[in-house]
Amino acid sequence: MARPADPAGGGRREETHHGGDMGTGRNTRTIEWLGDAVRLIDQTRLPRELVHKETRDYRDIAESIRRLEVRGAPAIGVAAAMGIALAALEHKALGLSRFRTEVASAAGLLNSTRPTAVNLGWAVARMLEVLRDPALGDPGEAVRRLTAEALAICEEDRELSRRIGEHGASLIDDGDGVLTHCNAGGLATAEYGTALAVIFAAVEQGKKIRAFADETRPLLQGARLTTWEFLQKGIDVTLLCDSAAASAMARGWVTKVVVGADRIARNGDVANKVGTFPLALAAREHGVPFYVAAPFTTLDASLGSGALIPIEERDASEVTDIQGVRVAPRGVSVYNPAFDVTPSRLVTAIITDAGIFAAPYEETLFRDRRGLEA
Amino acid sequence: MARPADPAGGGRREETHHGGDMGTGRNTRTIEWLGDAVRLIDQTRLPRELVHKETRDYRDIAESIRRLEVRGAPAIGVAAAMGIALAALEHKALGLSRFRTEVASAAGLLNSTRPTAVNLGWAVARMLEVLRDPALGDPGEAVRRLTAEALAICEEDRELSRRIGEHGASLIDDGDGVLTHCNAGGLATAEYGTALAVIFAAVEQGKKIRAFADETRPLLQGARLTTWEFLQKGIDVTLLCDSAAASAMARGWVTKVVVGADRIARNGDVANKVGTFPLALAAREHGVPFYVAAPFTTLDASLGSGALIPIEERDASEVTDIQGVRVAPRGVSVYNPAFDVTPSRLVTAIITDAGIFAAPYEETLFRDRRGLEA
Repeated sequence: MARPADPAGGGRREETHHGGDMGTGRNTRTIEWLGDAVRLIDQTRLPRELVHKETRDYRDIAESIRRLEVRGAPAIGVAAAMGIALAALEHKALGLSRFRTEVASAAGLLNSTRPTAVNLGWAVARMLEVLRDPALGDPGEAVRRLTAEALAICEEDRELSRRIGEHGASLIDDGDGVLTHCNAGGLATAEYGTALAVIFAAVEQGKKIRAFADETRPLLQGARLTTWEFLQKGIDVTLLCDSAAASAMARGWVTKVVVGADRIARNGDVANKVGTFPLALAAREHGVPFYVAAPFTTLDASLGSGALIPIEERDASEVTDIQGVRVAPRGVSVYNPAFDVTPSRLVTAIITDAGIFAAPYEETLFRDRRGLEA
Repeated sequence: MARPADPAGGGRREETHHGGDMGTGRNTRTIEWLGDAVRLIDQTRLPRELVHKETRDYRDIAESIRRLEVRGAPAIGVAAAMGIALAALEHKALGLSRFRTEVASAAGLLNSTRPTAVNLGWAVARMLEVLRDPALGDPGEAVRRLTAEALAICEEDRELSRRIGEHGASLIDDGDGVLTHCNAGGLATAEYGTALAVIFAAVEQGKKIRAFADETRPLLQGARLTTWEFLQKGIDVTLLCDSAAASAMARGWVTKVVVGADRIARNGDVANKVGTFPLALAAREHGVPFYVAAPFTTLDASLGSGALIPIEERDASEVTDIQGVRVAPRGVSVYNPAFDVTPSRLVTAIITDAGIFAAPYEETLFRDRRGLEA
């Protein structure tokens, strides 16, 4: 695909693919650095159409994160890092001091887009470390190093996902029914995923798996994205309402649960998409192992427990309106948290890039992988 | 409102009310007998418009039950009884023997519309008892008695709802946050409701209540109907996704849960709208009392446990399509149970028209109220 014709300015571009070329090669890369622009899949349009957005403006990246065009804790981190690299390009003509101020301000904007996923703050902090390096000679050098850092974060995330898959696959048996919530797949990361990486790797090992995808209200990431990823890989997947997961367990169909995470506190409490906590309760009730898969970038050593994790509340219209149609009466109040907190006592194990950890997480997981520190 | 102009045939008629006259008087009666026709609210159109359907054809009633235009276990029973009365009117010119065959066949059709709510089978059985009475002289007498029986079932259901409200209100305290699932209100019964009757009665006693309504995927009865009923009565209500109920409990907002039931087995296991079981698990986790409100017509003494209750599975499109828009990719499998079974050990008490019962239900509730027998 060609770059925008006009290399100046923060042009934003859309390209739509229908049918045949979906799911092949780079068209399904969640996010990609094009040298002077970022290209990402607009996930709000899936599965109906595969639309790529391309931009040179970090403000567009911030907007894409806010609107969930790019979502999933690791992918948000990658997007923010690339957004900061775009800001660096935009301001490279300035003097170093002014350059630093402008890029830091862009980083602040990107960091403020969503509060719960700690990977966002982690990636921004890593970029700011480069920006503040006293050894930086000029904006030109800063641009090169910031771009390299963003690419490294993206490349490392791919690698983290692969390792999570390899470690986690050992927990999945031939014949398992594996249920997941929301989308913790290739679309939520640079590639491959976290929870879905575990299932993908098990399938690659030749294990026969029946996958179950919660639809994940209100924004239906499970119905729209997770089923799509499974079907792309030819894996048998059954979609169900979030409220039917306990019934699927009661029928004995679900033998493992694997979900992703947006932030993990020092005691092992897990913030993840709303609906994860009731799923963990249902898993305990049925003796079904409940696994969380996440890279070390999701750990937050600065928070002692999940009660301290900020939980994003999103607009009421996500619940009252579906596909642009109002379903609830005017005047109703709405509670719309995007995430919930699963107490660590309900978590059988946490699958990371460094291996599989069990409670007490502060002494196992956080000793091995310190994650973000206060 | 005038009857259909042509009194012959099974004419079906629609009437729409917008805005101003919603919620007043007979316009909000769930179902009504008009002497030779049945008038019911098409609940699939709420809350956007209040549409009444009027018909003299029992086949339309069967279709309305199947499509959930009339829904809720007690209301389905009333609708089926009135449908049988319509069949009797339709066939009143036949000889008694042929009349009995035709009306019994209509009863069979109505009884087959939905499998889980036992109130349906109960109401049909009660009508068939009249139909089979050897003392019946002729179809004319049968029509009179069947019509009277259907009206009695409807009138009794109103009375049962009132009594459930009165008994249940004693369990609700001033300042409670009460969460409910699906719609067990006036729209699910002849009037007033079961679970909602408890809340309505508590409010009528002057208690200040904050109501929470699960949206209830896939058909959104909570978002569409329950919020509407609360707003009609001026009661503060907060809508939330089914998966956010556990979070609302964790925040301490929900201090009681009250739900309806479609069938209660002899051991106290409760079949109700899918999502009730995970709600009960979340309630136990948070020490929140979990109440089931239902008339004796919901009891099924013929089934020893909930495992024997037939659970209706509905069409995949209810999950894959929302408001006519496809949200999931083609080729995905779907699991769409309409109900689930909550084990009686998770039920704090069952509120009935005859009072409040606690476990062991076989010795308390089923001794007092035998319900439908094998």
